[in-house]
Amino acid sequence: MGKPYTRLDKTNAAVLLVDHQTGLLSLVRDIEPDKFKNNVLALADLAEYFELPTILTTSFEDGPNGPLVPELKEKFPQAPYIARPGQINAWDNEDFVKAVKDTGRKQLIIAGVVTEVCVAFPALSAIEAGFEVFVVTDASGTFDKITRHSAWNRMAEGGAQLMTWFGIACELHRDWRNDIEGLASLFSNHIPDYRNLINSYNAQTGNK
Amino acid sequence: MGKPYTRLDKTNAAVLLVDHQTGLLSLVRDIEPDKFKNNVLALADLAEYFELPTILTTSFEDGPNGPLVPELKEKFPQAPYIARPGQINAWDNEDFVKAVKDTGRKQLIIAGVVTEVCVAFPALSAIEAGFEVFVVTDASGTFDKITRHSAWNRMAEGGAQLMTWFGIACELHRDWRNDIEGLASLFSNHIPDYRNLINSYNAQTGNK
Amino acid sequence: MGKPYTRLDKTNAAVLLVDHQTGLLSLVRDIEPDKFKNNVLALADLAEYFELPTILTTSFEDGPNGPLVPELKEKFPQAPYIARPGQINAWDNEDFVKAVKDTGRKQLIIAGVVTEVCVAFPALSAIEAGFEVFVVTDASGTFDKITRHSAWNRMAEGGAQLMTWFGIACELHRDWRNDIEGLASLFSNHIPDYRNLINSYNAQTGNK
Amino acid sequence: MGKPYTRLDKTNAAVLLVDHQTGLLSLVRDIEPDKFKNNVLALADLAEYFELPTILTTSFEDGPNGPLVPELKEKFPQAPYIARPGQINAWDNEDFVKAVKDTGRKQLIIAGVVTEVCVAFPALSAIEAGFEVFVVTDASGTFDKITRHSAWNRMAEGGAQLMTWFGIACELHRDWRNDIEGLASLFSNHIPDYRNLINSYNAQTGNK
Amino acid sequence: MGKPYTRLDKTNAAVLLVDHQTGLLSLVRDIEPDKFKNNVLALADLAEYFELPTILTTSFEDGPNGPLVPELKEKFPQAPYIARPGQINAWDNEDFVKAVKDTGRKQLIIAGVVTEVCVAFPALSAIEAGFEVFVVTDASGTFDKITRHSAWNRMAEGGAQLMTWFGIACELHRDWRNDIEGLASLFSNHIPDYRNLINSYNAQTGNK
Amino acid sequence: MGKPYTRLDKTNAAVLLVDHQTGLLSLVRDIEPDKFKNNVLALADLAEYFELPTILTTSFEDGPNGPLVPELKEKFPQAPYIARPGQINAWDNEDFVKAVKDTGRKQLIIAGVVTEVCVAFPALSAIEAGFEVFVVTDASGTFDKITRHSAWNRMAEGGAQLMTWFGIACELHRDWRNDIEGLASLFSNHIPDYRNLINSYNAQTGNK
Amino acid sequence: MGKPYTRLDKTNAAVLLVDHQTGLLSLVRDIEPDKFKNNVLALADLAEYFELPTILTTSFEDGPNGPLVPELKEKFPQAPYIARPGQINAWDNEDFVKAVKDTGRKQLIIAGVVTEVCVAFPALSAIEAGFEVFVVTDASGTFDKITRHSAWNRMAEGGAQLMTWFGIACELHRDWRNDIEGLASLFSNHIPDYRNLINSYNAQTGNK
Amino acid sequence: MGKPYTRLDKTNAAVLLVDHQTGLLSLVRDIEPDKFKNNVLALADLAEYFELPTILTTSFEDGPNGPLVPELKEKFPQAPYIARPGQINAWDNEDFVKAVKDTGRKQLIIAGVVTEVCVAFPALSAIEAGFEVFVVTDASGTFDKITRHSAWNRMAEGGAQLMTWFGIACELHRDWRNDIEGLASLFSNHIPDYRNLINSYNAQTGNK
Repeated sequence: MGKPYTRLDKTNAAVLLVDHQTGLLSLVRDIEPDKFKNNVLALADLAEYFELPTILTTSFEDGPNGPLVPELKEKFPQAPYIARPGQINAWDNEDFVKAVKDTGRKQLIIAGVVTEVCVAFPALSAIEAGFEVFVVTDASGTFDKITRHSAWNRMAEGGAQLMTWFGIACELHRDWRNDIEGLASLFSNHIPDYRNLINSYNAQTGNK
Repeated sequence: MGKPYTRLDKTNAAVLLVDHQTGLLSLVRDIEPDKFKNNVLALADLAEYFELPTILTTSFEDGPNGPLVPELKEKFPQAPYIARPGQINAWDNEDFVKAVKDTGRKQLIIAGVVTEVCVAFPALSAIEAGFEVFVVTDASGTFDKITRHSAWNRMAEGGAQLMTWFGIACELHRDWRNDIEGLASLFSNHIPDYRNLINSYNAQTGNK
Repeated sequence: MGKPYTRLDKTNAAVLLVDHQTGLLSLVRDIEPDKFKNNVLALADLAEYFELPTILTTSFEDGPNGPLVPELKEKFPQAPYIARPGQINAWDNEDFVKAVKDTGRKQLIIAGVVTEVCVAFPALSAIEAGFEVFVVTDASGTFDKITRHSAWNRMAEGGAQLMTWFGIACELHRDWRNDIEGLASLFSNHIPDYRNLINSYNAQTGNK
Repeated sequence: MGKPYTRLDKTNAAVLLVDHQTGLLSLVRDIEPDKFKNNVLALADLAEYFELPTILTTSFEDGPNGPLVPELKEKFPQAPYIARPGQINAWDNEDFVKAVKDTGRKQLIIAGVVTEVCVAFPALSAIEAGFEVFVVTDASGTFDKITRHSAWNRMAEGGAQLMTWFGIACELHRDWRNDIEGLASLFSNHIPDYRNLINSYNAQTGNK
Repeated sequence: MGKPYTRLDKTNAAVLLVDHQTGLLSLVRDIEPDKFKNNVLALADLAEYFELPTILTTSFEDGPNGPLVPELKEKFPQAPYIARPGQINAWDNEDFVKAVKDTGRKQLIIAGVVTEVCVAFPALSAIEAGFEVFVVTDASGTFDKITRHSAWNRMAEGGAQLMTWFGIACELHRDWRNDIEGLASLFSNHIPDYRNLINSYNAQTGNK
Repeated sequence: MGKPYTRLDKTNAAVLLVDHQTGLLSLVRDIEPDKFKNNVLALADLAEYFELPTILTTSFEDGPNGPLVPELKEKFPQAPYIARPGQINAWDNEDFVKAVKDTGRKQLIIAGVVTEVCVAFPALSAIEAGFEVFVVTDASGTFDKITRHSAWNRMAEGGAQLMTWFGIACELHRDWRNDIEGLASLFSNHIPDYRNLINSYNAQTGNK
Repeated sequence: MGKPYTRLDKTNAAVLLVDHQTGLLSLVRDIEPDKFKNNVLALADLAEYFELPTILTTSFEDGPNGPLVPELKEKFPQAPYIARPGQINAWDNEDFVKAVKDTGRKQLIIAGVVTEVCVAFPALSAIEAGFEVFVVTDASGTFDKITRHSAWNRMAEGGAQLMTWFGIACELHRDWRNDIEGLASLFSNHIPDYRNLINSYNAQTGNK
Repeated sequence: MGKPYTRLDKTNAAVLLVDHQTGLLSLVRDIEPDKFKNNVLALADLAEYFELPTILTTSFEDGPNGPLVPELKEKFPQAPYIARPGQINAWDNEDFVKAVKDTGRKQLIIAGVVTEVCVAFPALSAIEAGFEVFVVTDASGTFDKITRHSAWNRMAEGGAQLMTWFGIACELHRDWRNDIEGLASLFSNHIPDYRNLINSYNAQTGNK
């Protein structure tokens, strides 16, 4: 009775980072700032780790919304970067859509600020355009829980899959044997509890 | 697999404000009062800003339910105003339905007090009558979270889309270039964090 | 795209109160006890007010589960009362199903303790048997929120509608003019905020 | 309009316990540790009580993830035990799938750590392979509520049923008369409130 | 090092109910309304049960603040009733202070709406005037937790003791043997969990 | 045993607004932004209403901290305004202390951002200098509840009184008869529930 | 400026377990039941481990309050057991006070149900009688957080020290070298996270 | 009436980091892990920035408690490092006390895991020994809020001051002009909202 299982495939996925701008981030209040920063950087690190085509876009970055978070800009110096002149839904910007299509990927991993607009609008448009959409809920932030859960409902009803960065990394990686150290390092850098496990393990087994 | 993306269109949308009465508001306990007041007024302001046909209705306003919140009455002096003689579901009132149909709009943005009755009943009836319904979850209030989430579930299963006022404003506006100042002003008046961004920006760039 | 609007009809609805027993009530921890007691009694009062056929059932009332809450027993002295000898799903008890069918009603309003068992099992069975099911979420209680939301999801996916007692009363009543005083009295007895509105109103207008 | 009621049947169900390892458990922060431990052990006890075929699997148990929780290993000494060499989705491991198929059961009760990976991946794969899947939400843990509810949504949309250990026990047992003492004992060992009811009852009736 | 234990004594205590008015109650949002109503009525019942001199006072009851909650007026028809003409701190009203002094009691049990004003002001004034003050925290309500905890801190630093109605009843009663049935009845009427215990007990022991 | 009751006196009180700057406000996450904005403006309004000497101060307003919130600047055009060149504790700034002493007032009502620094430091210094200090907890904001409650504890232990704007207004006003309309208007502008009471009252009594 | 550090000493401490009865436990709603049960049993285990004189007492155990939790009765078969005939404050019972004095200990570790009565009353009386009192906050339960925090405040102001079972165990033990295995075992049995650490450690270092 | 204001002085303060070990950190559940990690590292950075003498100590680091968090070890390679052989209260270890006294400082800033033991015990002992103690509440973690608030109460009653790392940094720095860039950099590295302010500011003013 349910939807078929659409599984993320690292050869078919791309990452869209929408409007993680220094001003807009002050609007995010449904996730604590330390945690949200970590989630966004974890998503960026996994995009880099799995060599997923990544597209950056901003809205009015010369105004109060502020510039893209510098860490993202630095991590993806070669990525298509679309500073939208006004379109609120990134999918209404032809350059953005072209950049997405140029990746040749059919699975879109989307995160952004704020969830119900910068994520939900392009997510729903992308589904309409035939893409499979995976929303990174914990790297997307908004005003409060009412807004978050309204947006999640609208996106899920529209066919988007709700995931978090950790699940996405695991589904892309498939098998630890593909690269144990790389994945462990990604986790260790972004999950303090996991880092502690590794440090205890190393100390107790004489590793490292 | 999901529902098709039904996008709000400012030439095809109308706003229904149902039973925001001074007495009934004391029943609203799933949103803090400062925040709820702001959300309702923000919705009213966006209705005015986008020149959406707006319909006001109340239930027993001469009794304990109290009169319509005066700010709403003042903002829409020309709007159809249906003081229902007894129907709990506004859609059971012929004048109300006629007023809705007279707008010629097919997309209904509905908010009210309390969510599971004054919003859910006309929302489900309107869908049955062939309208597209967008519930403004953060401008609709009720007794507690159990009631809220039961009502959201019933409405979403019935085909309503759950949105918040900010997402609605963004989806209606489409492109900042349609009117930067107007939209920024709407946001600045109702989102303190956004107002701060603008004030910092102006101070730092010598604007204003 | 959504489900059709199935509207409660007081000539076609019956109420099933499942296992509100004095022992089992100590398991309910997802709702505060003062509030839960009030919700259950409000549901009982509305069943009586709308003269809905009501069926009582208990599970092992001679053991630790304890007897039916006395207030319910007293309110419905003539109601079918099925003390199940062992069946956990009330629908597995033939007397219970017979009592339901004997009402001739097709809309079943179900509440009970605990939600994921005493409510969910007969709710899903009743849908399978062709009934329309309305779960009274705020008159049904269970261990915690994980359990509540799992049960809500299972029931909603299975076709049950999630409502609360207030919404049910409003949907059954349809129009205040059918009996203003009766409905106001029901609300005043179970919603302290509403009672306050009425008392203020009466004092200020010289009523009563 | 809803999904048909798929009811658990003790002659057709198997239990899959995925990655309840001593290291990974430190990642679980959406449920309090005392409660989570109790839920996992309750699930194990019910698997044993209903003599359900049970399959254990771990991921990298020689590394920081740590060994399987000893209590589980001890309770199911004869159970298939698949220490996966690297596959993150247990269903990608042929031995695991073979063990599942060898049970001859079509209903899979799945719990694990962490929910969005170790539970969701095999749950969705099993549905794809034609099984009926029941997720034990309260014996599955993860980082936080954002992750939990994203995972629940993905699994429910994919066709899994969300349940908790208590509901599963009740649906499997069907009728108290099948074994009153056994079921009461299971509840008494894992639900302090229920144990209290029984102890009060026994003291007050002169039992035991 | 601590303060000496000042123990409530039923021959030396009086109850002050300050501004529990139907309008002002809509301001109370730090306690759920069902629970708050129950706590206030429980306090009234214990005042009556222990025959404590009780004083009622209101602030501007002819205006929007509304009349005293009718249940309180009815329960204490003979009690001094001071409708203050304007003093916000009830202790600034000479009639009120005289009524307090006329009781001859030195221990004042105070509850009211809102906590930081109607309770805190007379509490601090009464201490200054040489009384021992016991604040009934759960029968006093206010806007939110910030206000509640600020007010509690100010009152406790000023020498008031923070208690709840149940503790007050127990400290006044001293020994169950003074009247088992009376106290049990008070508890049963206001603590659903306690009522359930009694009902289970009666059913299981053949009591009635 | 407690501290003596130090009562606010409108002829002896002054208000200090410390660092309510547009940038710093984005750090405030222990109160929702709509509510915090309202509380700060309510405090400003009461300062004006009671004609309390008011002192404004900022920290590095030309840098990222941003300018003083414009509404405060506009409301107190004649107030001493100390843009501190670097002192973190406003009390370390001689101009600020001089401005305070010039008021001739001995009771200081302090609010600011962030609580544990901009409020706590001058509060503790002012007490040391012999002033009576009243902290406006709900017009002071900071990072989270851990910080809030640590700061409250340090200030209370140091002798500051914790109050909220509403309590301060009431303690300053003493008696409604001093000006009913003025105080009601202050409340109506900043307490939606109170405004609703007034609007209902006026409608029901024919007032306007 | 603070109180002197009164340090627990295992040769001078006794444990008082007050009214942990099977009926009364259903009143405890400020701590989850799995956690509360664990905390009470951990306290019992530490009392046994440190060979602290332990005193059990109950209130009306033949009535609805129910018998003492059997696990406690079994663990301390030789302990003084005072079934109080009616005194609510255990300290009003001469046998109880005699049992306490007979221990010759001056430091009393008290836990019970409910906190504001069964713990607070004897705690304050014991301080008055010259004892040092340590309240075990996490092995004492009550109706809700309002009650808990009122009771904590009253007891702390009265001179009691607020601790939890883990801190008490650590302060009594002083030095791991007194018995590493014994203390580790106590922790492992009652702190799932600690048990996991030990199990991981043993697996990784070849211990066990 | 309050305690005198004891102000932190960077020439008189030392930092004690107690038992931040990789295993023990899995016990910390009153603060989210991302946030806690950040707070601990912020405290370490401020210790380094203000060149405060810093002392590290661990408990049983070769066992399940695990090694000191590597980041702390690396940041303070020259710091006294006391691996305690068994004393639970670090102050019971002579080397630790000697290291503290050797700093010549009288103000001790203490953080650790878990709060009620590793922080509270040495904090209370140090006060007894004549030191001024400042507890860093947000860099100290423990099992849950009951434990946290019990420990805070015990420490505050004993004379410790409760602060957070940000307040400590501000009180030590006194005046931005001592080093604007250094302090801003400390804040930017550990407060995402502050970093955003700086990045927006730089972008908008052309800084870099």
